[in-house]
Amino acid sequence: MVELGVGVIGCGYWGVNLIRNFANAPGWDLRWACDTDEDRARTSVRKYRVSVADSVATVLDDPAVAAVAIATPPSSHAALTLAAIEAGKHVLVEKPLAPSMAEAEEVATAARAASTVVMCDHTYCYTPAVRHIRSLVDKGEIGQIHYFDSVRINLGLVQPDVDVFWDLAFHDLSILDFILPVDLVPLSVAAYGADPIGAGRACTGYLTLPLQGGGIAHAHVNWLSPTKIRRIIIGGSERMIVWDDLEPSERLRVYDKGVSLAQGLSPEERRASLISYRSGDMVAPALDETEPLQGVVEEFRRAIIEERPPATDVEAGLRVVRVLEAANASRRDGGRLVALADYR
Amino acid sequence: MVELGVGVIGCGYWGVNLIRNFANAPGWDLRWACDTDEDRARTSVRKYRVSVADSVATVLDDPAVAAVAIATPPSSHAALTLAAIEAGKHVLVEKPLAPSMAEAEEVATAARAASTVVMCDHTYCYTPAVRHIRSLVDKGEIGQIHYFDSVRINLGLVQPDVDVFWDLAFHDLSILDFILPVDLVPLSVAAYGADPIGAGRACTGYLTLPLQGGGIAHAHVNWLSPTKIRRIIIGGSERMIVWDDLEPSERLRVYDKGVSLAQGLSPEERRASLISYRSGDMVAPALDETEPLQGVVEEFRRAIIEERPPATDVEAGLRVVRVLEAANASRRDGGRLVALADYR
Amino acid sequence: MVELGVGVIGCGYWGVNLIRNFANAPGWDLRWACDTDEDRARTSVRKYRVSVADSVATVLDDPAVAAVAIATPPSSHAALTLAAIEAGKHVLVEKPLAPSMAEAEEVATAARAASTVVMCDHTYCYTPAVRHIRSLVDKGEIGQIHYFDSVRINLGLVQPDVDVFWDLAFHDLSILDFILPVDLVPLSVAAYGADPIGAGRACTGYLTLPLQGGGIAHAHVNWLSPTKIRRIIIGGSERMIVWDDLEPSERLRVYDKGVSLAQGLSPEERRASLISYRSGDMVAPALDETEPLQGVVEEFRRAIIEERPPATDVEAGLRVVRVLEAANASRRDGGRLVALADYR
Amino acid sequence: MVELGVGVIGCGYWGVNLIRNFANAPGWDLRWACDTDEDRARTSVRKYRVSVADSVATVLDDPAVAAVAIATPPSSHAALTLAAIEAGKHVLVEKPLAPSMAEAEEVATAARAASTVVMCDHTYCYTPAVRHIRSLVDKGEIGQIHYFDSVRINLGLVQPDVDVFWDLAFHDLSILDFILPVDLVPLSVAAYGADPIGAGRACTGYLTLPLQGGGIAHAHVNWLSPTKIRRIIIGGSERMIVWDDLEPSERLRVYDKGVSLAQGLSPEERRASLISYRSGDMVAPALDETEPLQGVVEEFRRAIIEERPPATDVEAGLRVVRVLEAANASRRDGGRLVALADYR
Repeated sequence: MVELGVGVIGCGYWGVNLIRNFANAPGWDLRWACDTDEDRARTSVRKYRVSVADSVATVLDDPAVAAVAIATPPSSHAALTLAAIEAGKHVLVEKPLAPSMAEAEEVATAARAASTVVMCDHTYCYTPAVRHIRSLVDKGEIGQIHYFDSVRINLGLVQPDVDVFWDLAFHDLSILDFILPVDLVPLSVAAYGADPIGAGRACTGYLTLPLQGGGIAHAHVNWLSPTKIRRIIIGGSERMIVWDDLEPSERLRVYDKGVSLAQGLSPEERRASLISYRSGDMVAPALDETEPLQGVVEEFRRAIIEERPPATDVEAGLRVVRVLEAANASRRDGGRLVALADYR
Repeated sequence: MVELGVGVIGCGYWGVNLIRNFANAPGWDLRWACDTDEDRARTSVRKYRVSVADSVATVLDDPAVAAVAIATPPSSHAALTLAAIEAGKHVLVEKPLAPSMAEAEEVATAARAASTVVMCDHTYCYTPAVRHIRSLVDKGEIGQIHYFDSVRINLGLVQPDVDVFWDLAFHDLSILDFILPVDLVPLSVAAYGADPIGAGRACTGYLTLPLQGGGIAHAHVNWLSPTKIRRIIIGGSERMIVWDDLEPSERLRVYDKGVSLAQGLSPEERRASLISYRSGDMVAPALDETEPLQGVVEEFRRAIIEERPPATDVEAGLRVVRVLEAANASRRDGGRLVALADYR
Repeated sequence: MVELGVGVIGCGYWGVNLIRNFANAPGWDLRWACDTDEDRARTSVRKYRVSVADSVATVLDDPAVAAVAIATPPSSHAALTLAAIEAGKHVLVEKPLAPSMAEAEEVATAARAASTVVMCDHTYCYTPAVRHIRSLVDKGEIGQIHYFDSVRINLGLVQPDVDVFWDLAFHDLSILDFILPVDLVPLSVAAYGADPIGAGRACTGYLTLPLQGGGIAHAHVNWLSPTKIRRIIIGGSERMIVWDDLEPSERLRVYDKGVSLAQGLSPEERRASLISYRSGDMVAPALDETEPLQGVVEEFRRAIIEERPPATDVEAGLRVVRVLEAANASRRDGGRLVALADYR
Repeated sequence: MVELGVGVIGCGYWGVNLIRNFANAPGWDLRWACDTDEDRARTSVRKYRVSVADSVATVLDDPAVAAVAIATPPSSHAALTLAAIEAGKHVLVEKPLAPSMAEAEEVATAARAASTVVMCDHTYCYTPAVRHIRSLVDKGEIGQIHYFDSVRINLGLVQPDVDVFWDLAFHDLSILDFILPVDLVPLSVAAYGADPIGAGRACTGYLTLPLQGGGIAHAHVNWLSPTKIRRIIIGGSERMIVWDDLEPSERLRVYDKGVSLAQGLSPEERRASLISYRSGDMVAPALDETEPLQGVVEEFRRAIIEERPPATDVEAGLRVVRVLEAANASRRDGGRLVALADYR
């Protein structure tokens, strides 16, 4: 197997995870760990025979480096991605693509013109649960999607640089974007946040996204909850899904339950008619236990080799940033629905 | 103990529950069961020596009747309550007080002028869990309320006459109204609903209510969920509460967890500072298992005897109807926040 | 449908349940409620047009009575069942068939000679969960049964007349008897009980039953547990089952997990070899919510009409009593295994 | 703080954990990693500046080594411990102290005569949950212990050298030994095992230990369960405890529930009397999240410095081995209770 030379830029918590995965994945030759704090870079690759650098230029100048992974603070994502594209490298960039639409669009424009792969590290999209959900949607087993409801709450650290939407709801939006059929898009977004402890940024919040066709998506995120919940419920015309990421044994439950109206009725009859519920077995599919980041680095490699866009490409990254920026606008405007024109 | 004569008007599902509770409660003399379908009235009191009537007038004309309980469809609540007040009777009226603000205000005006007790049957406020939460709030053990988050979802019948807000969110609003301190009011309400199955009314929905002082209340209601959840989380500066009404053994859990910012800081420092979390024991208080409706009829009796307003008086009923009507307005206006002027 | 006349003897807690089910079931004509306390009999049939009697003879003398259901205290089960058989009636007798083997065998002998149906009310065998388990066993989907482990504990009333084995383990033994294939019998039983509170009878206990072929069955029963558990785990070579009767939504979970040894090995190789585990999906089958007692009265009716033994016949009742009496012997003899010769 | 030189002998799974904890704990100077496979030793200390050896003698000969930790296969525990004692070293030995009573007693005799500390690594005794339970017992808050019931089951590897009793029930016996008051001893033990898959050793089993004073202890261990359970319930006259080690948030629950008989009654009255139950709050104490092995190495250090026996000394190790050997005898003798004379 041909090996692609790769450098990891940014050796904090996430960078260390990337280093471990690139070091152990087939098809990759991890060559550089780069951090402005060179000691941190050195510590992060203690176990591996890898060069360290405190300057990004050193990495980008190495002709043996085909790809870089960027795990620096969000504010530098855009500039570093642009530099790497310019240097002709493939890029994997940690979420978010950029902290603003202006920057994200600049990156997207460059990425579209580039011949290299630019991939967003939307890690949750590579979990066995999300991949399974997407395959159910693709095969039509869910039917029409009626709603998507996520609760992502815990007693977490108040992040110093981002609010609870960019920290937690980002995941829900990236998952929603990944599993929705291409022609089922959110039409608009409304957001409410609260900062009841005076932290200077929203610590709890709600996002509502009406979907084309009458469905609705919603996310509840909260840093101040005494109990930890990670649960997404998806209602469809054919099946319903409950994904409880903290359930040790049965993470994903697929219910053969659906709700439908009797057919061939006038609107008046329809309103008066009884809804028929189907209720059947529940299946908890066996999911493998591979680390999602393994899937991320493998998808990055394949997209490069096969010269195709990755599953979470720069357009996916852009869509999530667009929703979050529209959510900011909604919050400034008293929770009004803000249209997401040209979502996809 | 002096016994108060009472008649129950409306002998459907809820009326039968009222009949059973009035028949068994001390201090009450159940005299009438009244229903336009006299057979239904007769069946509902088969076990008891009680007269039946198919006309409300018959009940109101009986001088031995001091009080009536109204459990008819919502559209007749206002008219019947007004008639009972006019007849000088005490009234217990099932939720909602009325299906519109115009009617609810008419009832409230009459009730304020009357010398009899008018009580709203907000049953959930008389559960041991809600009473316990209220007592914790009253004693200051929760501290400042940061958020109130309710999830009330299940695969339920699509109701023929009301949407999911009036059916399910009503309970959350009545609970919220009951436990909030007098000076902590919701400022406004935004509502989103969806009818993905074409039922002609919202089958799933979200309510958001910013609270005075920076907190937030939110309710998620859904008739189309494969899994049943009845859970309210309340975050406070001193303690946090999780009430899971389906948890067989530990319904209410009170966490000695709080979140607070270091004091004496400038806004800039505050934003940068670490939040300190306290984490302590969790206590699940022993709750008695009395039926809430027992508490309802006893509170009704005491309010009459003590000549005082009941805990859930006509003003409480009015407040809940006001929020739901504002939620309707919000939905018509794209989810905009609608102010709740003069909530209390 | 032809209706069978039936009388219920004993109008306590269980008798009232039988009355309700016979009154509502098709094919039955409930004619008598009989109790030594005639007032109690009268109260128990208040809702129905049924005669009351304070003497069993009155019921047995009625030629319109084809069958009786006996729900008196255990000490009178044998005598009443014998009398009913002698009177030519079909009999449904509450558990246990008799409180001793001597009496149980006397009943069995009479039942075998009789032309009427004698059925034991082993109610749990008619729950949707147990029926489903039995059908899986019958279809071979479980494979060879490796173990059967039951936990049936709660903070319960210390019964005045029976110990925790006869009160709670009875259910486990009747379920085990019902689902085991005919040729897979328990070989012996060992029992340990404890009475740590000085109640005069075992309040917590353990039963162990080695099965033919190397498997094992075990039951843990306890009246003194702070937490309520009703869970049976069945391990098989093909599938494993967890039945948690308190789980509101997914009562029964069937795991496509099995354990097997690599084949074609010598015993030495086998011991050293790795066990291979298969791990697949879990299915929670949809179970209907019918009351088990409906199934009991319907099976009683069908056995009479079809002139065949009921699913839980007097032999089943005898087997359970035999195990419990052997368990008594084991406890008297320091927990020694007591053989169950000729179990079936 | 003075540092004690220590060598770890055996660098498998557990040895690596010990190395990490000794390397990071204050008061220890990790000097040697020793394994017959020197490469394995080298890999295990890659992160640390530590010497490696393939011979135990090398470690024992180093005068800078005050203590050794033995994490080799059980069959070598006794010989290595004896050698270390002879060399004048303090010893921490992984469970079990030895695989037979004969060897365990030989070690105990040497340890009693030695001036060094010999400690058994009963890791579970150093978990926050077990420490908390022991402190409740010590303070009398549990009252008299009525029962101790453990379930420790999962789909686990069939161990090549030990059966499920020595693998899993060992933990229960070490916990039981740790928390029982000195004067409350198990009187005897009965054991049943099954090997339904032909693995050559018990894969599922039950241990029963009648306690002095009428209580009972019991453990259910199983390598063939589709669902993982780690739960110990302890019933006392004053409080009851449920420890569910897989419960993410409330691992330990202490119920203010007790069962008691009305006082001042004759035995006959007592038997007939109703038991009174107290039911009160449940408290889930906040437990710290420190790794138990940290507690192990710290207790080892303190025992050495303070020249006292460690909390899990060689006598504790001997007691657990004695019970397991008696359990073996019970299994050979058809599950008969085997007396545990002179348990403590």
